[in-house]
Amino acid sequence: MLSEFELIRKYFERAPRQARPGERSARGVALGIGDDAALLRPSAGMELAVSTDLLLEGRHFRAGADPRKLGHKVLAVNLSDMAAMGAAPRWATLAISLPAADEAWLDQFSKGFFALAERFGVELVGGDTTRGPLSLCVTILGEVPAGLALFRAGAGPGDDIWVSGELGGAALGLAKPEFAAAVKRLDEPEPRVELGERLRGIASAAIDVSDGFAQDLGHILERSAVGAIVEYERLPQPADVKRIQDKALQSRLVLSGGDDYELVFTAPQAARAEVTALSSELKLALSRVGSIQVGEPRLLVLDSQGRPMAVAHGFDHFQP
Amino acid sequence: MLSEFELIRKYFERAPRQARPGERSARGVALGIGDDAALLRPSAGMELAVSTDLLLEGRHFRAGADPRKLGHKVLAVNLSDMAAMGAAPRWATLAISLPAADEAWLDQFSKGFFALAERFGVELVGGDTTRGPLSLCVTILGEVPAGLALFRAGAGPGDDIWVSGELGGAALGLAKPEFAAAVKRLDEPEPRVELGERLRGIASAAIDVSDGFAQDLGHILERSAVGAIVEYERLPQPADVKRIQDKALQSRLVLSGGDDYELVFTAPQAARAEVTALSSELKLALSRVGSIQVGEPRLLVLDSQGRPMAVAHGFDHFQP
Repeated sequence: MLSEFELIRKYFERAPRQARPGERSARGVALGIGDDAALLRPSAGMELAVSTDLLLEGRHFRAGADPRKLGHKVLAVNLSDMAAMGAAPRWATLAISLPAADEAWLDQFSKGFFALAERFGVELVGGDTTRGPLSLCVTILGEVPAGLALFRAGAGPGDDIWVSGELGGAALGLAKPEFAAAVKRLDEPEPRVELGERLRGIASAAIDVSDGFAQDLGHILERSAVGAIVEYERLPQPADVKRIQDKALQSRLVLSGGDDYELVFTAPQAARAEVTALSSELKLALSRVGSIQVGEPRLLVLDSQGRPMAVAHGFDHFQP
Repeated sequence: MLSEFELIRKYFERAPRQARPGERSARGVALGIGDDAALLRPSAGMELAVSTDLLLEGRHFRAGADPRKLGHKVLAVNLSDMAAMGAAPRWATLAISLPAADEAWLDQFSKGFFALAERFGVELVGGDTTRGPLSLCVTILGEVPAGLALFRAGAGPGDDIWVSGELGGAALGLAKPEFAAAVKRLDEPEPRVELGERLRGIASAAIDVSDGFAQDLGHILERSAVGAIVEYERLPQPADVKRIQDKALQSRLVLSGGDDYELVFTAPQAARAEVTALSSELKLALSRVGSIQVGEPRLLVLDSQGRPMAVAHGFDHFQP
């Protein structure tokens, strides 16, 4: 069996890449994996965005999950945090505990991880491997020009509320594995990195949908000390979710389903044309779903008749 | 029971501190815990050192370990990586999985963590909490003036080999819990952060002793493509280890015991007076234990009669 050091070398230690034409820069690494720490060269005039996520088998992903998809997902959820900050992802560290040094697993996992990393010019610069129950801890570092980051605080009364892509697909995939498109949505989320970067200077606040639309928008409302009205009919749904007959289930998926990793953001009404143009340019649906209100940080979701709907609480890792 | 968000707020979300007189700067945080990512302001002209460690219950620490000591240790092992790079630690993220939202545990854990963080001016800027088997993942970020970081590569033939503090104490504490001083050494290691920073421009290579002196020095030898001769009698041992009658056990503790978090470094012979002066100034023993040799990356440890000693392999998380 390979030792810990050999494993790291074989699957995770790569020479820093040269940027390919049209690709983001892969520079900024003075020293990669293989020393006590990596050494990075942040760019002048940039702030550094940092986020950490810990994913556990049986909690955040199914036991026996496809390692290639898992490699994609663990990075994708972190890239999504960078997107929500308007930051360009640049570097990542990865700590893995796994029950055995399973080379086939590591081979597939690292392929999934690096395929996504390369798409976004992210360098894996450090890590740790140990034996234990399967868990994955990724820290991502990104850069954003000083003063241009997107915060949860910042939404103002009158601002529009926008959502990228579609909501509820990932939760459908979790509930009903027979829906292949929904399962793909759950297993291989697409982080909205380009959108996040392009929203600098446009959005007044942003967050990514990891715990469910209502709960995540709720964080914006709390931090911004504002309320919101959202029209349920405007919330973008994948075809499989639209077709659901059980309307209570449907609204639960759309309003409270997690793991979609879309961006929810607010922007002044004056920015509508700009947001619409951005949607065309990025070929990514951006739906205007409601507006920010003066008042308590409370979300009111209205049905097609204008009646308030019940909103289930989103996912909490310590609540039943 | 408190929710995940309330837990984070109660135990880990603190307002960035003001630096106290004589303390390192606590600045550099534009946005702390509570958004999709933290926003940091790296200093101009500095490189960023980044390292991640994952600690699992039952593997890296005993089940039922004192949470306050655990809070200290999980940060200490990461600070030690900064020390080994000559970097000044500045920011950290912390991801925890724990079986239940145990407030007494979190209270003690956060006290241990923050007590050490404050001593070294480290700000906790992000994190993640989830329910699962107890595991702790810390990513540490530090700064070092460009070009002055200490690497594992860099040791040259003729260089002296130095060790800070004492070796074997932590391993003794693990093997024999009746030795209180040794157990303290294991549970509450003292990261050699100041030493690391002061070795900039003096040391030719450095590493911290996490897996055992022989194995960790071995990494320097491999990366520097040099050999080494070490005199066993010169290796600094705590009194409890010196008194051990079983000489095979003693040498195993000293040469292959992990978790001491001392620094092993190499420096040109011309730097001897400077290293000795540094030892006095920091009130920290720095022992000259051998020298770097031309040749294969092999470590020869000689006993008091000049005979080669057997060296047990250090700890590997995937080897039996």
